Amino acid sequence: MAKEIERKFLVRNDRWRQHVTSETRLRQAYVASEDDRSVRIRTRDTSSAQITIKFGGSSLVRDEYEYQIPYEDAAEIINFAIGNVIEKTRYTVEYRGFTWEVDVFDGAYTGLVIAEVELSSAEDKPDLPDWIGREVTGDKRYSNQILATQRLKPELVHVISH
Amino acid sequence: MAKEIERKFLVRNDRWRQHVTSETRLRQAYVASEDDRSVRIRTRDTSSAQITIKFGGSSLVRDEYEYQIPYEDAAEIINFAIGNVIEKTRYTVEYRGFTWEVDVFDGAYTGLVIAEVELSSAEDKPDLPDWIGREVTGDKRYSNQILATQRLKPELVHVISH
Repeated sequence: MAKEIERKFLVRNDRWRQHVTSETRLRQAYVASEDDRSVRIRTRDTSSAQITIKFGGSSLVRDEYEYQIPYEDAAEIINFAIGNVIEKTRYTVEYRGFTWEVDVFDGAYTGLVIAEVELSSAEDKPDLPDWIGREVTGDKRYSNQILATQRLKPELVHVISH
Repeated sequence: MAKEIERKFLVRNDRWRQHVTSETRLRQAYVASEDDRSVRIRTRDTSSAQITIKFGGSSLVRDEYEYQIPYEDAAEIINFAIGNVIEKTRYTVEYRGFTWEVDVFDGAYTGLVIAEVELSSAEDKPDLPDWIGREVTGDKRYSNQILATQRLKPELVHVISH
């Protein structure tokens, strides 16, 4: 069991691209989704997959259990998705001692770019890069679970101001 | 992905006990439970645990995905059970070329004994031992999912006629 603490932001421009250290293609779908729990399947590129069970409605700290499963199983299970299958490319960006993940969505959410930074404690204060926009930590509209099972309004998707 | 075909019966008496080849202590709980899908955690004795995802409302054939997870994780996840935690001892009984599993429940379902036989095809016709009672294949009241998330009526529990 791991506690997950992260802050989430919209992204203002493309300057993060020059600091990318890796990229991964992600597909994810929820096979169960309730207010206080979720079961998510995620594939990485075309090689690996995980099942993740999360409990607790709090947005900052949750109980999370994650296990590797065969990629072929995951590709089947995704057919039982509740709502949308989320497809995005995740870029890893290093900035002043913190690792940021920048998610560039496609499909229904083309235009949406979200940056997350994982903290080792709730007291961590990362420097914010200049490409960071409005903080949306705790804004459930931008949670994976809501993006997958509902439909984000277009004006919340197209937020990049070049 | 495995297809699961099984028949399920109530048990009339204790004569199966002389043919037991092994026994396992099982605890199981559902962390998600919908008409067309479920996510179940199960521990075996105090050593191993599985997560099982099932899809499809048909009682005879379902899509089932099962993965080993750490016992310690499972013991934590069971605290997030929807409804009852099912506790039972499963006895394996060999009879005329088929392997039967006899589940003796305790806790809220003390008195309930269910026998299942797994078939390799829907055409398999196993000989029924003389301790077998009424067939309940497809009777959702006796499904693990309903037993866990609802409450079986007492008159459906106490069915042994000695």
